[in-house]
Amino acid sequence: MSEKRVYLFSEGDASMRDLLGGKGANLSEMSNIGLPVPPGFTITTAQCMEYYANGRQMPAELMGQVRTAVEAVEKDLGKSFGGSTNPLLVSVRSGAKFSMPGMMDTILNLGLNPDTLKGLIQESGSERFAYDAYRRFIMMFSAVVLDLEKSVFEHAFDAKKKSRGIKLDTDLTAQDLKEVANEFLAIVQKETGNPFPTDPWKQLELAIEAVFKSWNNDRAIVYRRTERIPDEIGTAVNVQAMVFGNLGDDCGTGVAFTRDPSTGENYLYGEYLMNAQGEDVVAGVRTPVPISELEKQNKAVYDEFVAICNRLEGHYKDMQDLEFTIEKGRLFMLQCRTGKRTGPAAVRIAVEMVTEKLIEKEVAVQRVTASHLDQLLHPRIDDVYVTDRGIKAVARGLAASPGAAVGKAVFDADTALRLGDAGEKVILVRDETNPDDVHGMLAAQGILTARGGKTSHAAVVARGFGIPCVAGCESLHVDLRTRSFTVDGQTIHEGDIISVDGSTGDVFLQQLPLIAPDVSGHFGTLMEWCDEYRRLDVRANADNPRDARQALEFGAQGIGLCRTEHMFFEADRLPIVRDMILAKSDAQREAALLKLEVVQQSDFEGIFEAMDGKPVTIRLIDPPLHEFLPNLVELSKEVTELQIAVNSLGGDAIKALLEEKRALLQAVESMHESNPMMGLRGVRLSIVFPGIVAMQTRAIMAAACKLTKRGVKVHPEIMIPLVGHVNELKVVQTQLESVATEVQEEWGVKVPYMFGTMIEIPRAALTADEIAEFAQFFSFGTNDLTQMTFGYSRDDAEGKFLKDYVEQKILPYNVFETIDRGGVGQLMRMGVEKGRAQRAGLKCGICGEHGGDPESVYFCHEIGLDYVSCSPFRVPIARLSAAQAALQERVKVTLDK
Amino acid sequence: MSEKRVYLFSEGDASMRDLLGGKGANLSEMSNIGLPVPPGFTITTAQCMEYYANGRQMPAELMGQVRTAVEAVEKDLGKSFGGSTNPLLVSVRSGAKFSMPGMMDTILNLGLNPDTLKGLIQESGSERFAYDAYRRFIMMFSAVVLDLEKSVFEHAFDAKKKSRGIKLDTDLTAQDLKEVANEFLAIVQKETGNPFPTDPWKQLELAIEAVFKSWNNDRAIVYRRTERIPDEIGTAVNVQAMVFGNLGDDCGTGVAFTRDPSTGENYLYGEYLMNAQGEDVVAGVRTPVPISELEKQNKAVYDEFVAICNRLEGHYKDMQDLEFTIEKGRLFMLQCRTGKRTGPAAVRIAVEMVTEKLIEKEVAVQRVTASHLDQLLHPRIDDVYVTDRGIKAVARGLAASPGAAVGKAVFDADTALRLGDAGEKVILVRDETNPDDVHGMLAAQGILTARGGKTSHAAVVARGFGIPCVAGCESLHVDLRTRSFTVDGQTIHEGDIISVDGSTGDVFLQQLPLIAPDVSGHFGTLMEWCDEYRRLDVRANADNPRDARQALEFGAQGIGLCRTEHMFFEADRLPIVRDMILAKSDAQREAALLKLEVVQQSDFEGIFEAMDGKPVTIRLIDPPLHEFLPNLVELSKEVTELQIAVNSLGGDAIKALLEEKRALLQAVESMHESNPMMGLRGVRLSIVFPGIVAMQTRAIMAAACKLTKRGVKVHPEIMIPLVGHVNELKVVQTQLESVATEVQEEWGVKVPYMFGTMIEIPRAALTADEIAEFAQFFSFGTNDLTQMTFGYSRDDAEGKFLKDYVEQKILPYNVFETIDRGGVGQLMRMGVEKGRAQRAGLKCGICGEHGGDPESVYFCHEIGLDYVSCSPFRVPIARLSAAQAALQERVKVTLDK
Repeated sequence: MSEKRVYLFSEGDASMRDLLGGKGANLSEMSNIGLPVPPGFTITTAQCMEYYANGRQMPAELMGQVRTAVEAVEKDLGKSFGGSTNPLLVSVRSGAKFSMPGMMDTILNLGLNPDTLKGLIQESGSERFAYDAYRRFIMMFSAVVLDLEKSVFEHAFDAKKKSRGIKLDTDLTAQDLKEVANEFLAIVQKETGNPFPTDPWKQLELAIEAVFKSWNNDRAIVYRRTERIPDEIGTAVNVQAMVFGNLGDDCGTGVAFTRDPSTGENYLYGEYLMNAQGEDVVAGVRTPVPISELEKQNKAVYDEFVAICNRLEGHYKDMQDLEFTIEKGRLFMLQCRTGKRTGPAAVRIAVEMVTEKLIEKEVAVQRVTASHLDQLLHPRIDDVYVTDRGIKAVARGLAASPGAAVGKAVFDADTALRLGDAGEKVILVRDETNPDDVHGMLAAQGILTARGGKTSHAAVVARGFGIPCVAGCESLHVDLRTRSFTVDGQTIHEGDIISVDGSTGDVFLQQLPLIAPDVSGHFGTLMEWCDEYRRLDVRANADNPRDARQALEFGAQGIGLCRTEHMFFEADRLPIVRDMILAKSDAQREAALLKLEVVQQSDFEGIFEAMDGKPVTIRLIDPPLHEFLPNLVELSKEVTELQIAVNSLGGDAIKALLEEKRALLQAVESMHESNPMMGLRGVRLSIVFPGIVAMQTRAIMAAACKLTKRGVKVHPEIMIPLVGHVNELKVVQTQLESVATEVQEEWGVKVPYMFGTMIEIPRAALTADEIAEFAQFFSFGTNDLTQMTFGYSRDDAEGKFLKDYVEQKILPYNVFETIDRGGVGQLMRMGVEKGRAQRAGLKCGICGEHGGDPESVYFCHEIGLDYVSCSPFRVPIARLSAAQAALQERVKVTLDK
Repeated sequence: MSEKRVYLFSEGDASMRDLLGGKGANLSEMSNIGLPVPPGFTITTAQCMEYYANGRQMPAELMGQVRTAVEAVEKDLGKSFGGSTNPLLVSVRSGAKFSMPGMMDTILNLGLNPDTLKGLIQESGSERFAYDAYRRFIMMFSAVVLDLEKSVFEHAFDAKKKSRGIKLDTDLTAQDLKEVANEFLAIVQKETGNPFPTDPWKQLELAIEAVFKSWNNDRAIVYRRTERIPDEIGTAVNVQAMVFGNLGDDCGTGVAFTRDPSTGENYLYGEYLMNAQGEDVVAGVRTPVPISELEKQNKAVYDEFVAICNRLEGHYKDMQDLEFTIEKGRLFMLQCRTGKRTGPAAVRIAVEMVTEKLIEKEVAVQRVTASHLDQLLHPRIDDVYVTDRGIKAVARGLAASPGAAVGKAVFDADTALRLGDAGEKVILVRDETNPDDVHGMLAAQGILTARGGKTSHAAVVARGFGIPCVAGCESLHVDLRTRSFTVDGQTIHEGDIISVDGSTGDVFLQQLPLIAPDVSGHFGTLMEWCDEYRRLDVRANADNPRDARQALEFGAQGIGLCRTEHMFFEADRLPIVRDMILAKSDAQREAALLKLEVVQQSDFEGIFEAMDGKPVTIRLIDPPLHEFLPNLVELSKEVTELQIAVNSLGGDAIKALLEEKRALLQAVESMHESNPMMGLRGVRLSIVFPGIVAMQTRAIMAAACKLTKRGVKVHPEIMIPLVGHVNELKVVQTQLESVATEVQEEWGVKVPYMFGTMIEIPRAALTADEIAEFAQFFSFGTNDLTQMTFGYSRDDAEGKFLKDYVEQKILPYNVFETIDRGGVGQLMRMGVEKGRAQRAGLKCGICGEHGGDPESVYFCHEIGLDYVSCSPFRVPIARLSAAQAALQERVKVTLDK
């Protein structure tokens, strides 16, 4: 028996999405549960792939099976495809497993030609209707199958309306439409050199092939890439008998959702138009009417539709998106699929469906996605406002720190601080930021930079403080002299209001309305359910008491990463840090360290107090010291300029300044590194300059002792970064253990503390057994681990080649966002296994940015980590993902049994 | 029974080096084969370690066992330790398993005090001799055990000679020496506050402890670190009855080697002095006499000594280093150990001993070390000349490219080229070099830079071309204005002659004689033997025909790494490369690429022709393109200066120059990377700019086709660098395969070529199975693999922390010189195993600098690589190491059976 290539709707069901696509499977399912669906059939997805495998040739036996299926439909309806009486017309639609905008959508009324047209006139009793159907078919078929420009037909149509002096399509007469159809046929002859195909079977074959072709058009390819849909699944083709919503006033068509897709509220949401075809609803020529009106217009049909909606929601146990047509008072269902929804709606629907006992809690937890939650957690730009007005972003940079912000553009940190303190909302716009800008960044609603990647200073600081940020927006030209920036030919001056969306990278040159984060009751309920299922703990990355409190509000169970050097960057500390680095004597250095110890201790006290007994992992200083000093290139230029000024003007003041800058330059030069990411930083710094980490450990332990004395519970976990060889840890840990002991003796209290390490160097993962001899916990630093495992400098890669790599599918996704299972993941798994083989039950966590990425959280669950840590705003997402991972595992275990 | 802590010489043998140290084991062995050795005993190395384990306390039972052993010696000789008649005097010497300069050497005449002195006078019949022995003992003991300054005693001694108006020690009378001894005793009383210890047992105990202490003195620690001798093996202590070479004219002492340690010639080599103690020979007060004179002076003793020498060489089957004393016409052997030798001597001795049937070829091959061979392969500074004149290096930089060079200092490439062309020998001295200097580097005998590490431009280019180079000599201050450099207070002007030693990093401010490499017949024989045993092939890294020929001369079996971009750096190509990079249109870029293709093709023709059918692995372009452009900081300064000049002076010429430089700066800025080592380079570059590698592949294949047509055999192996994900290789290899096919079709010939990849990114090793689906060979790039596995940027690490790491024993050695087995090695092993699991028999090699390091070659053998590749001058060393690895494995296999 030959392969089955075509399934009648009566032969399929909802489980066959792989083979029949989503639309086909749902049409089959609806048919089989007895809903009124016009008969038809589905050509399987395998045919599409065979078409490409054959070098774009239609599979040999396909059209034979299509004929058999058409015959079955003819028989069902008593109509005849291509018949001059009672002709069967069909629609042809694509339908992949996943809904895919960009592919060929629909051809309606296929089968019309001069012969069948007569039959249609006879059958419908309306010449006008028949010619209207005909001209629509010619245009759609020509645009989609024959690749002609739609606008050519539209112009001809508009010209006809103009010549008749009318505005509405409906005012055209049958004769007008007949003339239009003939003009359309002439256009096809002229443009293609061939007559419009009249053989309905040829029309059908060409339409099917057009669907196959559209699988690989540019928009479809881009969409699949963005949504990570594989190229190999292909699309199905649905061929279905036409029903008409435009045969008179007892006809109509509409779309509906079983609940409100924006808010999730449980009522029938939708709209319809009487005497119209589907495209009229979309085209917006006539304004559709809310679905509730249908009850007044035709209660029988309305009641039937409501019953069907309830039945389908109950059947699929999810909110449904439906299309229907009423033909001469009879209701037909044309489509049924799970409805897309906003984040707030997703949460509300999931929670309410549990209350309604429609679904289980486990299902509810799995039905909300990370991006749904993300919408709830940050202010966002009002989509409806933007769409309604056709507002477009003027530029797109990197989505560096999520959330949207609106405010006056300002160009330096001091202005930002001054206006911010005065209660103004400002967006700080810079070429790139540096440590000198931090006070201004903190005062701003949002940050916009022209240069730098997702780990640039601006991005890192913004994420750390939860400030929306668009970074590396390269089409921006900032001119500090005129205090303005130019983009796409438009100039924005200081004080002009702009909007930025750090979740998408979009920049707008106007004030847009924002929707505030909505952490409502439904959200809280959902989060509680997540916590019932997940095995992974969720911690937050937080560098200050404010972030720590924010993290707690979002349900963090501890701090997984407190970056001590972030405290160094604050405006009041940076000068002390510089004094320490540039100290000319031990005494000067000691004095600076002592000052830093005081401020660090008070920072730690604040954090410990906020976390109230929950574990706090504190990473000792990590970046190279030159990050705290001015930029080499800028400083070199400055010295050159001063030198020339001294030569030409002289003057003691300039001379003194030159000497000062020269000394600074010398220091910067001597610390300059060709690849700072792999230079003197992390534990290496601690070995070469042990004073800094000894100071930090004193500050941590003194803060812990002080609070312990006051009765606050404190659990510091001191983390040594960038270890690649066990001996590094051994040396530093031994020194710091004695500092910790000393401080506890001074205070006369015992604090439960631990020393552990980051696993962020490939060699650390490879030798995790050796390292676990000393480390009391591991925290995977997957940012650096990804950099070293791939040999990618993130800053360089994201600007220079990573985008190409993802677009060309060399990498399946951006590996700095989602953990690369094959390489980085392999090392992590090795690290956990070797570490625990050496030290049973070793606590393992992750503190890279991957800790807030759903796919990565799944992976962390899979390899048995104890916790993930992410930025405060990602904590709910991590809780959700951790629960989903646990639930998926449950399913897997059941299947494996 | 209690632990045996002390072994009489009669109780040990040569196999007990671990326990008795080298010296003790050999004294035992000599005793036991019946040679005349003064009786004595050895305190085991375990006592030294116990001493430290006890917190520097002498092991409790030790002195008891020492007493028993002393009694045995007393009994043997009929003397009495501490006796006032016929007293036993002893020497105390350290003796670790390995010879270790820096530790306490010797205390002679121990046991003397006013009592035993009388006995000694009586026994020797010479008051003068006895007091001489006494004053020597007091001084040695005071300096070594009591930690007093030797110079205090020497001053007193010199004052005595002055007061007597004499010059030679031997002119002092017994009375003089008695007075000296008393003065010495007074000095001890004054300096220590205590009298000199008179109890011989106390003297002995203190001396033994002093040996233990010297195990951990600074010099010993540094030596162990340099020679990679473990800290945990401890030293033994040898206590031996004194014999005296200074009891009269029938007495004497000397040292000898059984063959000439400089040349390896087979004759008795050594010198001696009559009526003298050992230290007199060393002190150089009297000039020793060649050993051949002894035959005339005392034929019986001479013949006995020659017989002993022959016996010992035959016994140990190696050249021996001997110490002897003649006491009243009787010969005593005091020491016997394997003699140190120069490289040429090592090779000659090994080869001749095989001819003499003293040893097997396998032994000969294992007896020559890599550093022996290295001495043969490069010009070297004449040690004897330097030592004799007490010449010291004025500075030490990094040993960046081996070999020594002498020439006039010059300060720019053009001068180097001009003088070089005129036949002058020059050393190019620069702060650091860049691509613009290459023509001058090639014209120089040697290169000296003040900045940059072992992978700096200077170092890499110098090694590539086999030019001696000292890099990063930081105490050098180059002043281009005055065309001079200053170091350690001395100034050298252009034209002054200096010498540099790229094997040690030493810099000398004078002309030194060089010894030319000596690749004699013995060397050739040894290399042939190596080839009989080794399993690993040895290839060379060579970037041009000259190096290829050099490599062949040294026995390379192919080229393992030809760095195509090195050809780009040559003076006539760099402008074309810049044109290509800065091209404003595709046409300009194409034109530049075409020019490059022509020169690259002719380079490849030269290399293929030189290699005559041997495989040639060619790596496609690897470095980031900005390496071919000017430095960002310098260029920024230049533009700033020009900007100011334009502002103040104006002028069209300067304006035009400013515009030009500005455009260049913009290009440099846009290509700037924060971590270029992990940026847009290697295969990433090939994906983003496919034109360059397509050009290179065309050049390679066209060269191969052209030579094939001429009947030359050619085996190109085209290597794609920096692959981290199989898809990178897939994309690039597919493109290049079609280029290769195209070129072959154009020429109408088939060339046997392969495409393969470097394994130099951790992820490549981790996913080697996937990569081997496409790669037809692997070559481990261990330079980069080490950088990424450790997260070390070599350039930064070597200057900033790697030295500290090795000194503090955080790393056992410099991992850029020797493969880190634990991490990098683990990845290599994984890479080989996974690669071959996917593709049986996959050819695997190494082309990092580790390929010429003996330890690393052993490791490559161990993990089953097919070949190692190294710089031409390291080829013989790799051949030797490969043979040694195979022979060691043989031993291991035998032992395992």
